[in-house]
Amino acid sequence: MMMEENYQSLRTTVRRLPQRGVYDRAAIHQILDEGLVCHVGFVIEGQPYVIPMVYVRVEERVYLHGSRASRMLRALAGGVEACITVTLVDGLVLARSAFHHSMNYRSAVVFGTGAAVEGSAEKGAVLHALSEHLVPGRWQEIRGPNEKELQQTLVVAIPIREASAKIRTGPPLDDEEDHALPTWAGVLPLRQMPSQPVPDPRLPPDIPVPLHVKRYVGPASV
Amino acid sequence: MMMEENYQSLRTTVRRLPQRGVYDRAAIHQILDEGLVCHVGFVIEGQPYVIPMVYVRVEERVYLHGSRASRMLRALAGGVEACITVTLVDGLVLARSAFHHSMNYRSAVVFGTGAAVEGSAEKGAVLHALSEHLVPGRWQEIRGPNEKELQQTLVVAIPIREASAKIRTGPPLDDEEDHALPTWAGVLPLRQMPSQPVPDPRLPPDIPVPLHVKRYVGPASV
Repeated sequence: MMMEENYQSLRTTVRRLPQRGVYDRAAIHQILDEGLVCHVGFVIEGQPYVIPMVYVRVEERVYLHGSRASRMLRALAGGVEACITVTLVDGLVLARSAFHHSMNYRSAVVFGTGAAVEGSAEKGAVLHALSEHLVPGRWQEIRGPNEKELQQTLVVAIPIREASAKIRTGPPLDDEEDHALPTWAGVLPLRQMPSQPVPDPRLPPDIPVPLHVKRYVGPASV
Repeated sequence: MMMEENYQSLRTTVRRLPQRGVYDRAAIHQILDEGLVCHVGFVIEGQPYVIPMVYVRVEERVYLHGSRASRMLRALAGGVEACITVTLVDGLVLARSAFHHSMNYRSAVVFGTGAAVEGSAEKGAVLHALSEHLVPGRWQEIRGPNEKELQQTLVVAIPIREASAKIRTGPPLDDEEDHALPTWAGVLPLRQMPSQPVPDPRLPPDIPVPLHVKRYVGPASV
């Protein structure tokens, strides 16, 4: 398959602040690979719905999963137009003027239509990839899905055909004359951080916190 | 105005895992007040769009703002149907089986149609509330918006008429027989955390980090 080097299209072209628009494949993949939750937009009878979901990107597809009974997943598997947005908040940009306050962020928007992934082996592979995306190293220590569980699970693949990203980085950009103000300006970095794991109350006390969980929390606890 | 105690409607009724559905006004307000970024869904020519934005709730409205040139804001001000979703990720739920892995989260979904806020005083009040929502205490130390900046800013109010929340908390809920497995299970808490502020490279060195920024980063730095 010929691979386009970027995902730009009429629909994805960033119109506001076009200098923030990014269509590069690698940049978009990086945002998709760093996020844990996407927001999935779709339309039913003219009404937009936006629902948070975990997801994983594998090659040129975004995968969603959930119960076979999910109205949203069934609609997505049926091929309704979807918009999948992943937003990483990197910091609050504190300017000298209210007007130039902003946020440092990276967001990726993918447009496409989905289809159900059929076959237990294929579904299992997606769930494995999703697990590795969320908590690398955990899959090998858990009980994998059995046939009944796979049957209950609907997996939907959305090919990444049109996509764009918006990225803002760096310090505030104040009007020149506002630099004379005695106001502190800068960036307050924000990041989604893990804290110490909380064992299941029913966990036997002799089962230690595994390495893949310690690694997630950070080098200090390994 | 008569106030309903909850926002439930046919459109907002949570169908999947209905035990996670919440329609209580206070619970929904709390989620809206804790988030920094919402994902706004709307439809143009049948295509759903999902765009991240900062926002603030004041009483029974969610306010968005941006440039007058923004196609999305103009559509929202023109009264297209919108869906505004705020998601707070609280942790990864690590079960003994792949199937029962989950996420602890709180999300709120608001359906409504917007209208532009007119008048500089009204717009200024919304921007003030937004600033207090994002970084409490900062507004009084910055240069407020001037008339020209207010003219360039489109503020849209979306009344909260129909809304719902979904909340998952607590430990993994494994199948009874899986408790015999020697697998660590529990919750990895996640939280959006600030780190040390980064001064603007152009900031004069004699301007100290103000209290409202120190407070944001945490008690240890005050």
